[in-house]
Amino acid sequence: MDSAGFIQKLTDVVGEQFIHTEPVALRTYDCDALTIYKGVPSAVVLPESTEEVRRIVEICRECHVPLIARGAGTGLSGGATPLPGGVLVVFTRMNRILEIDYENHLARVQTGVVNLHLTKKTLPHGFHYAPDPSSQAACTIGGNAAENAGGAHCLKYGMTTNHVLEMTVVLPSGEVVHLGADGEDAPGLDLRGFFIGSEGTFAIITELTVRLTPNPESVRTMLACFSQVGDACRTVSDVIATGAVPAAMELMDRYTIEAVETVVQAGYPRNAEAVLLIELDGLPSSIKPLETLIRDVCEKNNCSSFRIAQTEEERENLWMGRKKAFGAFGVIAPAYYCLDGTVPRSKLAQVLEEFEEISARYGLRITNVFHAGDGSLHPNVLFDDQAPGETERVIECGAEVLRACIRAGGVLSGEHGIGLEKIREMKEQFDEPTLGIMERVRDAVDQDGLMNPGKIMPDEEHIFPLASGGALARMGGGMTK
Amino acid sequence: MDSAGFIQKLTDVVGEQFIHTEPVALRTYDCDALTIYKGVPSAVVLPESTEEVRRIVEICRECHVPLIARGAGTGLSGGATPLPGGVLVVFTRMNRILEIDYENHLARVQTGVVNLHLTKKTLPHGFHYAPDPSSQAACTIGGNAAENAGGAHCLKYGMTTNHVLEMTVVLPSGEVVHLGADGEDAPGLDLRGFFIGSEGTFAIITELTVRLTPNPESVRTMLACFSQVGDACRTVSDVIATGAVPAAMELMDRYTIEAVETVVQAGYPRNAEAVLLIELDGLPSSIKPLETLIRDVCEKNNCSSFRIAQTEEERENLWMGRKKAFGAFGVIAPAYYCLDGTVPRSKLAQVLEEFEEISARYGLRITNVFHAGDGSLHPNVLFDDQAPGETERVIECGAEVLRACIRAGGVLSGEHGIGLEKIREMKEQFDEPTLGIMERVRDAVDQDGLMNPGKIMPDEEHIFPLASGGALARMGGGMTK
Repeated sequence: MDSAGFIQKLTDVVGEQFIHTEPVALRTYDCDALTIYKGVPSAVVLPESTEEVRRIVEICRECHVPLIARGAGTGLSGGATPLPGGVLVVFTRMNRILEIDYENHLARVQTGVVNLHLTKKTLPHGFHYAPDPSSQAACTIGGNAAENAGGAHCLKYGMTTNHVLEMTVVLPSGEVVHLGADGEDAPGLDLRGFFIGSEGTFAIITELTVRLTPNPESVRTMLACFSQVGDACRTVSDVIATGAVPAAMELMDRYTIEAVETVVQAGYPRNAEAVLLIELDGLPSSIKPLETLIRDVCEKNNCSSFRIAQTEEERENLWMGRKKAFGAFGVIAPAYYCLDGTVPRSKLAQVLEEFEEISARYGLRITNVFHAGDGSLHPNVLFDDQAPGETERVIECGAEVLRACIRAGGVLSGEHGIGLEKIREMKEQFDEPTLGIMERVRDAVDQDGLMNPGKIMPDEEHIFPLASGGALARMGGGMTK
Repeated sequence: MDSAGFIQKLTDVVGEQFIHTEPVALRTYDCDALTIYKGVPSAVVLPESTEEVRRIVEICRECHVPLIARGAGTGLSGGATPLPGGVLVVFTRMNRILEIDYENHLARVQTGVVNLHLTKKTLPHGFHYAPDPSSQAACTIGGNAAENAGGAHCLKYGMTTNHVLEMTVVLPSGEVVHLGADGEDAPGLDLRGFFIGSEGTFAIITELTVRLTPNPESVRTMLACFSQVGDACRTVSDVIATGAVPAAMELMDRYTIEAVETVVQAGYPRNAEAVLLIELDGLPSSIKPLETLIRDVCEKNNCSSFRIAQTEEERENLWMGRKKAFGAFGVIAPAYYCLDGTVPRSKLAQVLEEFEEISARYGLRITNVFHAGDGSLHPNVLFDDQAPGETERVIECGAEVLRACIRAGGVLSGEHGIGLEKIREMKEQFDEPTLGIMERVRDAVDQDGLMNPGKIMPDEEHIFPLASGGALARMGGGMTK
């Protein structure tokens, strides 16, 4: 089949309105929120049903054209960056909430439903969808499942994999299968859990059954400030050691505080070296003693101030600082590169010191704003994306940051995924036999290498060109972790 | 290689003391706690290290002899039943706790560590290992991971897969790989989660890093009695609907109450049609309002009595009834067959009615004692294993019970696994393409079909003979769910 025939077949499936093949349109889809690498697809299709996706997969399989799925394009590791020439399947239209079962705490949704929309819909009935990546106002539940997304409240509520019970997926063979079950445990081999976080390299998710979480009766949000980052890190370990499980525990360093206060005035003291934003939720009577306990731990670790939000407005303001932190970096640098590594909580202080050392060596500022409670770091390398050669240096600096995490007994990614960003570092995380078994299993699912090739596994040449010049590094926006 | 040469090679690995080949010794290992099917292995080996396991796998691979792993043999679906002629690898000697890291809430253990031993070891330090199958005094952590075991407290704390962070496994290729990582999320493909619950059909687990859970500050245990089973079921749904998450919520029907009271006098009223054993844990101040809330829900659903254990002794007694329930069935029938299916909580009452109807049709009593909070059922078919043809009828009756669960939107297994028990029913749970992808992935991991063949997947002839005569059905013991 020639190229025109191929495009015509796709058009027959989705209709002329819902396929893009013009270069200008294609270029708007050439990356996700990791803008360092880009790839222009041969076509962008916007299906509206599982059946349309199935037909698209069949056409691509016949013609040996790779497929890449894209939710909202908010991913930070390049999971939705198109392989040049591949077909990008975009789920903007598959955004329907299909069924809500409050009695059994379940919702069935199409893959393109925006994360926050499900929460907004169920909130008046006393429920929400717990995984809350910072991009939740834009990102999709299908994309979250593909990346096994986390979020600030995953400390208490767990990652996406803990909230997806069943998925309908289209396999590269064109078969439609249902993985998992509505119960606590799915019998047989746990393909559901295995496909979650496989970053689109196994199949395309089209529908999901997810858990709804009852809203907590009350919420208390507090801010602890420290003049030593190490003290803040020790506080995190000590809080967890008490057995208390805060709903969230976020750490921001002084660069972040400076940026945030310049932009949104969240009320973080500018002279602090670090702040901890801690949230408790549950019954009012259970929160009260935890508040006291956490304040004690903070004081024992020399916190310079400790404050509990007294009004909903004050609480929202404290969170606003955290949520706008990434966008705020714009006031201290033209661009930044957001990394994602996880270390044991007890190693937080040590690893942050190593970041300082790496930062000094490269002459690149590294800021830290992260989910401290589960040791999930987000170091951000600030830079000037107009300076020649700077992007390459930032990538090298980022790789060193990730290596420091691995050396500390941590891992390459807490929640952003490997995508194409961390392909090289997979070899430092895993030995040959472990990578080998991952590869064999992936090849068994995707025998012809059609599903999002070039992601996760370091088995292929780096096929994505580094974006050149000034447009490469993402700026601001607040749509990040 | 001839048979003697093969045995000699295995002997060279583990030493003469730790290999059994005499028929009498082999027969003691011919099944696990599902005694309906049996298989006599050609050898039983008891290695003491990952390296010994690796060498055993290599020898078996060379000689094309299948391997079956066995922890304590408490599994209820035949996961550790040896394929006749296979080599059974028994982990009694690999029972060392290798490392405990209280700061990061982790423990590293060998696969044969008994579940309860880890809890006993860490209890004085304020921690325990949360997954608590009723067999926890005997079953091993490696076996729990192979089956993704649950337990009464999994309602609040999650299944085994939520507590295992990393595993060292020996692949059928003889390679030793490390799956997962000590962090919240492992990067790359989640082979850890995929291997958990694969019932030994992928690889042999030799070491695990597991999560330690801080002990709750206080625990309250209550007993609610009902004169209608339906009321007890509605109570379960209504409690969960409030948003409260009890640590455990167990339902026992009147046959179970009768058996329990005859044997251990747990204090369950003999005239009740059902009792709910409900446990709350957490801070005392958070438990108090939940107590009131749960009592209200029970009363609204016509409970005939409601009692909170006032002393530790009273609490232990209430649990004793639950824990000895299976053993107690011995006073009302010579044998029983314990099933395992899960249904949406809202369907509990309806499914129990269907069980009644099946029970009447077969003339076989079905008792119910189960983890009601997550809809995880354990119907027990009572029977006389001396009566000719009875076992076959019990198996058929059990299959109907499982089919009723599937029809109600539930699944074949809540926590016992498929093993060889439910192989046939896999075709009723899953369609052809879904079974096909499970099979392709399994074959990619175990290319030569060496790892516990004949389990989970319905792709092979039933190769295990039904045990004949009187010795087939398991009796009493209390080492069950």
